[in-house]
Amino acid sequence: MTRFALTLEFDGSPFMGLQRQVHGPSVQQSVEDAAFAVTGERAIMHAAGRTDAGVHALGMRAHIDIAKPFEAYKLLGALNDRLRPHPIAVLSSEVVPDDWHARFSCVGRAYIYRIANRRAPLTLEKGKAWMVPKPLDAEAMHRAAQILVGLHDFTTFRSVHCQSSSPLKTLDRLEVRREGEMVLIEAEARSFLHHQVRSMVGCLALVGMGRWSEEDLREALAARNRRKLGLNAPPDGLYFVRAVYPGE
Amino acid sequence: MTRFALTLEFDGSPFMGLQRQVHGPSVQQSVEDAAFAVTGERAIMHAAGRTDAGVHALGMRAHIDIAKPFEAYKLLGALNDRLRPHPIAVLSSEVVPDDWHARFSCVGRAYIYRIANRRAPLTLEKGKAWMVPKPLDAEAMHRAAQILVGLHDFTTFRSVHCQSSSPLKTLDRLEVRREGEMVLIEAEARSFLHHQVRSMVGCLALVGMGRWSEEDLREALAARNRRKLGLNAPPDGLYFVRAVYPGE
Repeated sequence: MTRFALTLEFDGSPFMGLQRQVHGPSVQQSVEDAAFAVTGERAIMHAAGRTDAGVHALGMRAHIDIAKPFEAYKLLGALNDRLRPHPIAVLSSEVVPDDWHARFSCVGRAYIYRIANRRAPLTLEKGKAWMVPKPLDAEAMHRAAQILVGLHDFTTFRSVHCQSSSPLKTLDRLEVRREGEMVLIEAEARSFLHHQVRSMVGCLALVGMGRWSEEDLREALAARNRRKLGLNAPPDGLYFVRAVYPGE
Repeated sequence: MTRFALTLEFDGSPFMGLQRQVHGPSVQQSVEDAAFAVTGERAIMHAAGRTDAGVHALGMRAHIDIAKPFEAYKLLGALNDRLRPHPIAVLSSEVVPDDWHARFSCVGRAYIYRIANRRAPLTLEKGKAWMVPKPLDAEAMHRAAQILVGLHDFTTFRSVHCQSSSPLKTLDRLEVRREGEMVLIEAEARSFLHHQVRSMVGCLALVGMGRWSEEDLREALAARNRRKLGLNAPPDGLYFVRAVYPGE
């Protein structure tokens, strides 16, 4: 049995999410089906993060165990051939020790959220960014974002479906910058609660529009109450960028 | 009768091209149908350039004449509402003089071509870039590109279907640069022949792969013979970026 670590890029639009679902297509099922076609083995894929329907990945990490001997680069090519009908690509494949686990060994996760700050409907960016027509003050959003950095009880920014045992998380970085009509929000932490990035982005957008002050954001955080959430941003703009492992 | 200049952005993937076609959907037909729904008038749209099936636009200019009085910003909003099922957006709308013509008044056109220089299949960029797996030397491509700048007979780089009266064109700028895994090629001229940008990009890619020398490119240009073309790049990576008009 050999454990292969994979780096995945995918367009989340056609999927119900990364993890296998009974009611629709998932990234996990597509990769597991491709692995079965290549190896004849029914292997389970484990990933660094669970992403929702419509959320994208530029560098998701995952692992899969395969009994048949395979060169890592041959597995990569064979998986990509089989995945071709789906917008999923394996960017890298390497053999890792048996105790390396894509989810449990992961010590850092980074996301980027893309807001298209424009009035015209999206064309080339449809499904790949959140369109916000009202002008956003990216600098005000960046200043307010610093309120959320650090160790906090993020209950306000957590989905009611979140399965994490604790709402306490340390947010290492939350930066907002403008690039032309795009407002980009980068978030880094050891781990995130379900919907945390989208909920933080939604509230920062309220700040950017001038509808919320920094004080409103501070109060929402302190309330530790999901009902105090201003806005949950849609999945379209969210990208899982990278997972960090010890020694990498 | 009022003439409105429009700036259009579109994803060319679902269209047979910009101009109206008998055998499939076009950008022109979508915009004219939207204008009819809004105004009740059957107006013809004229554009700065004709783009092929699968070619995109970030800032195509066009004009349309409408008899019914309309504020330019209201026309913009109404057209975008009607265009919503299609990946076409009107970015700006303004009233222009009756002798302003999107095609005939245009004195400059700019394109960008995007090559994804990677081995993994495209996911988020599918249909929006040309995937070239072999490593490309972008600096060598840029040096070779300078051979094509200036006034030349571009017969080698011209589609057999080109309707231009002369193969003589002045290429003002052709620059190649790398941004991560993307190789970007920017081209500017008063006007281009049919397939000229794609044909130049195809041959520059051969140079980037080391299959063609600068001398090969020089000979292909001098041959003035379509059969000496090395490679025509696919439409996926091509974007019409902007049109230039006197006094703008």
